[in-house]
Amino acid sequence: MKGFTLWFTGMSGAGKSTLGREVEDALLERGMNVEVLDGDEVRENLSKGLGFSKEDRDTNVRRIAWVCSLLTRNGVATITAAISPYREARAKARETIGRFVEVYCKCDLDTLEARDPKGLYKKARAGEIEHFTGVSDPYEPPEKPEVEVDTGSESIEDSVRKVLLTLEALGYIPKVEEAGYSSDEEKQIAKRLEDLGYI
Amino acid sequence: MKGFTLWFTGMSGAGKSTLGREVEDALLERGMNVEVLDGDEVRENLSKGLGFSKEDRDTNVRRIAWVCSLLTRNGVATITAAISPYREARAKARETIGRFVEVYCKCDLDTLEARDPKGLYKKARAGEIEHFTGVSDPYEPPEKPEVEVDTGSESIEDSVRKVLLTLEALGYIPKVEEAGYSSDEEKQIAKRLEDLGYI
Repeated sequence: MKGFTLWFTGMSGAGKSTLGREVEDALLERGMNVEVLDGDEVRENLSKGLGFSKEDRDTNVRRIAWVCSLLTRNGVATITAAISPYREARAKARETIGRFVEVYCKCDLDTLEARDPKGLYKKARAGEIEHFTGVSDPYEPPEKPEVEVDTGSESIEDSVRKVLLTLEALGYIPKVEEAGYSSDEEKQIAKRLEDLGYI
Repeated sequence: MKGFTLWFTGMSGAGKSTLGREVEDALLERGMNVEVLDGDEVRENLSKGLGFSKEDRDTNVRRIAWVCSLLTRNGVATITAAISPYREARAKARETIGRFVEVYCKCDLDTLEARDPKGLYKKARAGEIEHFTGVSDPYEPPEKPEVEVDTGSESIEDSVRKVLLTLEALGYIPKVEEAGYSSDEEKQIAKRLEDLGYI
């Protein structure tokens, strides 16, 4: 099977890693080789010493993209979950990788600040964390992501389904007939991909 | 097919990349997925900003090892050609990667200084390059590499053959009957692997 990269982007706490892990399970069930390059894991293994300036974030994203490209061209379903706040850096990652599926984990800031399980937003508001995306650092939402999920309002099952249906519609994974996929959903996804120029 | 990492180590100019590329061709001919992580390419894509202190070299080797481990566990024949002068860092790489075949590209310093196609040894002797392995920085040769080639005295064909025969003996690639492999060579390789505790 040919590889691809699912590039999850979104603010801290928007559910990138959680959704990434759920999608990983679903792809493993379908017999694929899967790797998850989680933001924290990457910071530890590739980017220790880098900070959160624009330059350092871009370097971090470039490194992730290079590793994703190696895995992708060797048939791996590669999932990466890093904030990756800058549009241009994501565009370059898309170019480096080729079979690139951008998944925008959208979640409004009020919801993120209300959840805040690690208290990071609170600390950022108090000025204790610099360069915190959404508070003291920009987040540039994707303009044309292949998938957009709203983790503030939709269930994780719905989000996973959107990702899988998109991969099926792109021909990156084989179609599976399953109860529960409404033809409306399929139509919406086909429409989105058509708008992006795929179909 | 299961992956593995061929870890070429040796001083600058010892022929790591050249041999790596030849082995790449041979493995591609055998239908494997192959990736070469060359020292310079890795410095550009993973380790820009790192220097050549022991700490920075170790960090560089750790990053390479992490990427090798991802590729190896996804069935890729991964070839890396970095000086990787420190024994302990290579031992950690071995641990991270698992199916790890160390290829020591041995070449005596006189030969390297006589060749010196890029004039690097000359510059290092003149004090124009700091931390130059073999001149102003240590190189710790492997004590028990799976393969040892002497690029100062043996032909590249012989070196490639040693690597391939070792991979065959380890069961990492299927055996190919070919004219030119003497049973003496096979015996020597079997002996080496037996000494290393493989067989």
